[in-house]
Amino acid sequence: MTESADERLERLERRVRELEDRLALYQLIATYGPAVDSGTSEVVGSLWTEAGFYDTFPVVLEGRDEIAAMVLGDRHQSYMANGCAHVQGMPHIAIHGDTAVATLYSQLFLRDDENDGFRLWRVAANRWELVREAGGWRVVGRVNKLLDGSPDGRELLRRGIEDEPV
Amino acid sequence: MTESADERLERLERRVRELEDRLALYQLIATYGPAVDSGTSEVVGSLWTEAGFYDTFPVVLEGRDEIAAMVLGDRHQSYMANGCAHVQGMPHIAIHGDTAVATLYSQLFLRDDENDGFRLWRVAANRWELVREAGGWRVVGRVNKLLDGSPDGRELLRRGIEDEPV
Amino acid sequence: MTESADERLERLERRVRELEDRLALYQLIATYGPAVDSGTSEVVGSLWTEAGFYDTFPVVLEGRDEIAAMVLGDRHQSYMANGCAHVQGMPHIAIHGDTAVATLYSQLFLRDDENDGFRLWRVAANRWELVREAGGWRVVGRVNKLLDGSPDGRELLRRGIEDEPV
Repeated sequence: MTESADERLERLERRVRELEDRLALYQLIATYGPAVDSGTSEVVGSLWTEAGFYDTFPVVLEGRDEIAAMVLGDRHQSYMANGCAHVQGMPHIAIHGDTAVATLYSQLFLRDDENDGFRLWRVAANRWELVREAGGWRVVGRVNKLLDGSPDGRELLRRGIEDEPV
Repeated sequence: MTESADERLERLERRVRELEDRLALYQLIATYGPAVDSGTSEVVGSLWTEAGFYDTFPVVLEGRDEIAAMVLGDRHQSYMANGCAHVQGMPHIAIHGDTAVATLYSQLFLRDDENDGFRLWRVAANRWELVREAGGWRVVGRVNKLLDGSPDGRELLRRGIEDEPV
Repeated sequence: MTESADERLERLERRVRELEDRLALYQLIATYGPAVDSGTSEVVGSLWTEAGFYDTFPVVLEGRDEIAAMVLGDRHQSYMANGCAHVQGMPHIAIHGDTAVATLYSQLFLRDDENDGFRLWRVAANRWELVREAGGWRVVGRVNKLLDGSPDGRELLRRGIEDEPV
């Protein structure tokens, strides 16, 4: 049975929508580093939903305002003054309608003047749970687990990919 | 001469197919790290064709089963117990119909408890040769070359890009 | 009011064009590392417009020929002989018609034989300004700022994202 022009258009629209979703999620994740490393707290906050959380050892930040406040806090400001880079890797993405999960590695590099270079302080497994809101995709919850040999990081990585065969 | 609606639809379908291919290849590459670092050997194996190989100094693993078995082997399990991250970078991709080549950097980070951080043990030039199968894109062969100043890594990188002007 | 098939086709064509632009920009950025680390100077040069510049501390290279010549120069050749990897991260991209800005991190890893590993010498904030030419997207100007705690890097990162809410 031949597909009608209308059906072909609808199918294309669905496929293009999924491609746009995927690239919007890449873009959102690629915004985090530049926002946090420049201290642009309102942009960092805007990546999350109003009530979204960020579980980053050892703290859990609850809500967009707490997440934005972290950027202005002493600890993060001292990283910025030292020189820091929060690099987010290329994510594995699973989209289910209006929700999505991104699984990726984050790295935190700190300037190391003594050695005329940078040191890699943290490498973490990341799970970003996302939802489509009226204004676009937002983070409902982000969990980081340090890849220090404990099982939590491995479980997080496995969970992100095991239900999503390529 | 004006293009008919039918011709426009066909052209769009081809363009959308190529975009989907590109993003499927990104996704496949972004699956490797989470699969291998969580010890999910069957997912690692499933990224390759049945007879696909993985040439990673100094060994060459032949076939999906040998590749999956590597994940469960002593060496890799000791990396996992220590804390490890196999980070694959954003690839350069050349698609030719049902085959593709991805050229990228892989990095292997190991937890370094003594220095409260991570050390970068390996940075390798990567060539992933891929084929479209019924179930999606799969790796026919992957070759890693350490970027230690020897010519192999440079030749691999050059080969990936020189026939593909941007 | 219902959209006509013609209007739907036009809208799809615009959306697909933007997706293609985004992926073409990813590809261009992913070409830089393999080109420069393999010493393929003509490919490095071809990423820029004829008069494009590359401001990389402490030098400013003016024009495609100077940029290509840098690849063949003593300093860069010594990096290659030692073992080097110029890794470009996943970019934040803002497209405005025929111009675009990509904001990302670049990393320069050097082989460190003494420690059987690699050291991270430089992490820089990057701003790539791009233009669509007849042959595709090209770099008009690229600026790198070391993330050493001075404000330049932070300002570059902020500028890339603040006008582009996700």
